[in-house]
Amino acid sequence: MGHDDSYFMKMALQEAESAMKMGEIPVGAVVVSHGQVIARAHNMTERLTDVTAHAEMQAITMAADLLGGKYLSDCTLYVTLEPCVMCAGAISWAQLGKLVIGANDSKRGYKLLAPDVLHPKTEVIEGVLADKSTEMLQSFFRARR
Amino acid sequence: MGHDDSYFMKMALQEAESAMKMGEIPVGAVVVSHGQVIARAHNMTERLTDVTAHAEMQAITMAADLLGGKYLSDCTLYVTLEPCVMCAGAISWAQLGKLVIGANDSKRGYKLLAPDVLHPKTEVIEGVLADKSTEMLQSFFRARR
Repeated sequence: MGHDDSYFMKMALQEAESAMKMGEIPVGAVVVSHGQVIARAHNMTERLTDVTAHAEMQAITMAADLLGGKYLSDCTLYVTLEPCVMCAGAISWAQLGKLVIGANDSKRGYKLLAPDVLHPKTEVIEGVLADKSTEMLQSFFRARR
Repeated sequence: MGHDDSYFMKMALQEAESAMKMGEIPVGAVVVSHGQVIARAHNMTERLTDVTAHAEMQAITMAADLLGGKYLSDCTLYVTLEPCVMCAGAISWAQLGKLVIGANDSKRGYKLLAPDVLHPKTEVIEGVLADKSTEMLQSFFRARR
């Protein structure tokens, strides 16, 4: 029996927790191909001084590197927060098979400014362990205030 | 007397030409800060097997690395082709000061799917040496057919 979406989302949440410990906005991502985790990453924008170093971008790059091909049509990307426009654009180029989102991001999420950016074949599932992701983000921003 | 936009766009076109010689879709980008070129890059998606390796993404990452800060508010990005949604998202996160575009991209450019993605303070100039960029792209795709 295969693992369900919440199993891999928990792993993405662990990545988000690692980000938080480094003082990064806690967002984590995991790429799964045929039941195997092939990439785990978290937000590194502060550490790398790089606005492009979002969890999804790094996970996509790592996964393609491991597979030896640019396209992730057979892959599922689990991400703890709704991707931003940049990441959704990358997900679109990668022709991702399935996208599983934790919490929604009503301010910076792609659905606000680029609702039609994803590849039409990409299946999207939302709200998987959303509360855990939201709690972590809220506690991060509370601590910063 | 400072250089004008076409001077730096020519440099971006040279980058695009380097991409073409490597079998990459010819798109080039240059970042200028206070009249100095601080990053030059071209599309490397095939060579790096990475959909995120667009000219703009690499130029933004290089420029931030050189400046030691994530934000490019004092910079101008010259790019030979209208950025895609992913790159426009990155440009938005970087709070770029000025964006100078060569040719428009009516199919994959950000204006189609995410027209409001850029930071409101980013000045946008279009059509600088657009014909040169279009010619190079057309000759690239003609050769591939």
